[in-house]
Amino acid sequence: MNNLVIIGSGPAGLTAAIYSARAGLSPLVIEGFIKGGQAGGQLMTTTDIENFPGFPNGINGAELIMNMRSQAERFNTKFLMEDVEKIEIKAKGPFKIQTTSQTIESKALIIATGSVAKYLEIPSIEKFKNKGVSACATCDGALPMYRNKVLAVIGGGDTAIEEATFLTRFASKVLLIHRRNEFRASKAMQDKISENKKIEPIMESILEEILGSDFVEKIKVKNVTTGQLKEYECSGVFMAIGHKPNTDFLEGALELNELGYIKVKSPSSLTSVEGVFACGDVADPTYRQAIRAAGTGCVAALDAERWLRENI
Amino acid sequence: MNNLVIIGSGPAGLTAAIYSARAGLSPLVIEGFIKGGQAGGQLMTTTDIENFPGFPNGINGAELIMNMRSQAERFNTKFLMEDVEKIEIKAKGPFKIQTTSQTIESKALIIATGSVAKYLEIPSIEKFKNKGVSACATCDGALPMYRNKVLAVIGGGDTAIEEATFLTRFASKVLLIHRRNEFRASKAMQDKISENKKIEPIMESILEEILGSDFVEKIKVKNVTTGQLKEYECSGVFMAIGHKPNTDFLEGALELNELGYIKVKSPSSLTSVEGVFACGDVADPTYRQAIRAAGTGCVAALDAERWLRENI
Repeated sequence: MNNLVIIGSGPAGLTAAIYSARAGLSPLVIEGFIKGGQAGGQLMTTTDIENFPGFPNGINGAELIMNMRSQAERFNTKFLMEDVEKIEIKAKGPFKIQTTSQTIESKALIIATGSVAKYLEIPSIEKFKNKGVSACATCDGALPMYRNKVLAVIGGGDTAIEEATFLTRFASKVLLIHRRNEFRASKAMQDKISENKKIEPIMESILEEILGSDFVEKIKVKNVTTGQLKEYECSGVFMAIGHKPNTDFLEGALELNELGYIKVKSPSSLTSVEGVFACGDVADPTYRQAIRAAGTGCVAALDAERWLRENI
Repeated sequence: MNNLVIIGSGPAGLTAAIYSARAGLSPLVIEGFIKGGQAGGQLMTTTDIENFPGFPNGINGAELIMNMRSQAERFNTKFLMEDVEKIEIKAKGPFKIQTTSQTIESKALIIATGSVAKYLEIPSIEKFKNKGVSACATCDGALPMYRNKVLAVIGGGDTAIEEATFLTRFASKVLLIHRRNEFRASKAMQDKISENKKIEPIMESILEEILGSDFVEKIKVKNVTTGQLKEYECSGVFMAIGHKPNTDFLEGALELNELGYIKVKSPSSLTSVEGVFACGDVADPTYRQAIRAAGTGCVAALDAERWLRENI
């Protein structure tokens, strides 16, 4: 029987591990794949992180995660590199976690399985990830490679318009490519588009292909009504077609919001089930930043430690 | 007129600066003293930080803050080393900040002035800070210097009992020194004391003096009823008599909770006044950790950036 199992090994899960390990709980981190997620989380495929505080010259995503992992290990965190296949949750536990090869029991549980950004399924997207294709304007928009360049945002919801408006701070022009003939965003947000001369909406259109040698140089856009193809000079393509929290494996055991994110009683990490805590992007439809995920990981560990102390 | 002024320069204020500076807002950080607080915040007087994720071998508090400060500076944050004396807040701003030498105006405002731990006012406390005297069991309890040693906790509320119980994970014994003849803590918490053989309550008593050459070695305790003095072997003294958020300078301009912390609409950083955001310990009566403060600093910057974009 474990005191505490942490599912997920991005900044949230690893910070929860550092804190709970230092508190003497000997946590077990399950760091396998969780349907779409990968060990270490989204930072593992991020090259330069400029906004994680404490690293004035930036740090490579994988390096930051490896640092956190060693830190958790130093205080006696155990790691298991296996996939979680099923989970049994009842109030106050103990909780059963079925992995590829074994069943694990735990008195308390922290879920930090993250989310994944949705990308269009076209072959050239994969080729240009971190080379002009991004799913986070907040993270990457300020990078020198995007300054005073034409950028494209794909999507038509509030997030797409927010990201487009945000990017006009850096870009010479932002192409906002949306496959429908109107935006799903609120009126107020749409007004922002018409007021902003740097945004050029391209309606009823989809991204057909990304062109370039090493980095994004051009995009080919198809009008879905006329079928017409058009090429644009473009140095960056920002996906804003949503994120998907990794909560499928929960099969309804915890209360989720309408987008599938785990509901927590903010500012705490308490979920709808006593003894189960959630942190990081899996419980954050709004901010989705590594430093914020790490902060909530600390909160989850303190909440879990306190709960174990008072209830078990 | 500034876009954004950030008052406070601990992990919350500096992370807010990094994020808002990268978003092109050219924030101004006021990093002077704020009645009891100091530039850089509480980490400036913390030697080893083992639990800030990303630093597997720990990092010195002042060094971590200097790293964050350079990072903010790199993205065009301005700094002003002056005390804030007065502030004028009205809904939607602009906000006026009176410092020692000038009046500063800003469209949006982030308050990150932190809190200070209360210490008993006895001369030997100052001498042994970071040398056996701490105000944070979560932060310092796991340090090697406290392992299998007799430790003392000063206080009688929920926090004092929590910290005493937490420290029994590491200590050989925990003296819980309280000046009254009963604890203010809840029944459930008090039961935890009687169940825990490692906790020795010392009632109606106050800490009179700390003795030692370089580090804490003994404490002198005075019974307030009998006046009797007694010495105990002891290697660590943990203050648990509360924290004080640095909100006096607000003079009621924002809604505070009953302990004086700024109320925020969690998980956001929105305060009771539109255009004013709060992050870090000044809005956190519960967790009080550097990584959590940094996470909320990121949130405040994203909230402020969005608010400016939609409203100004």
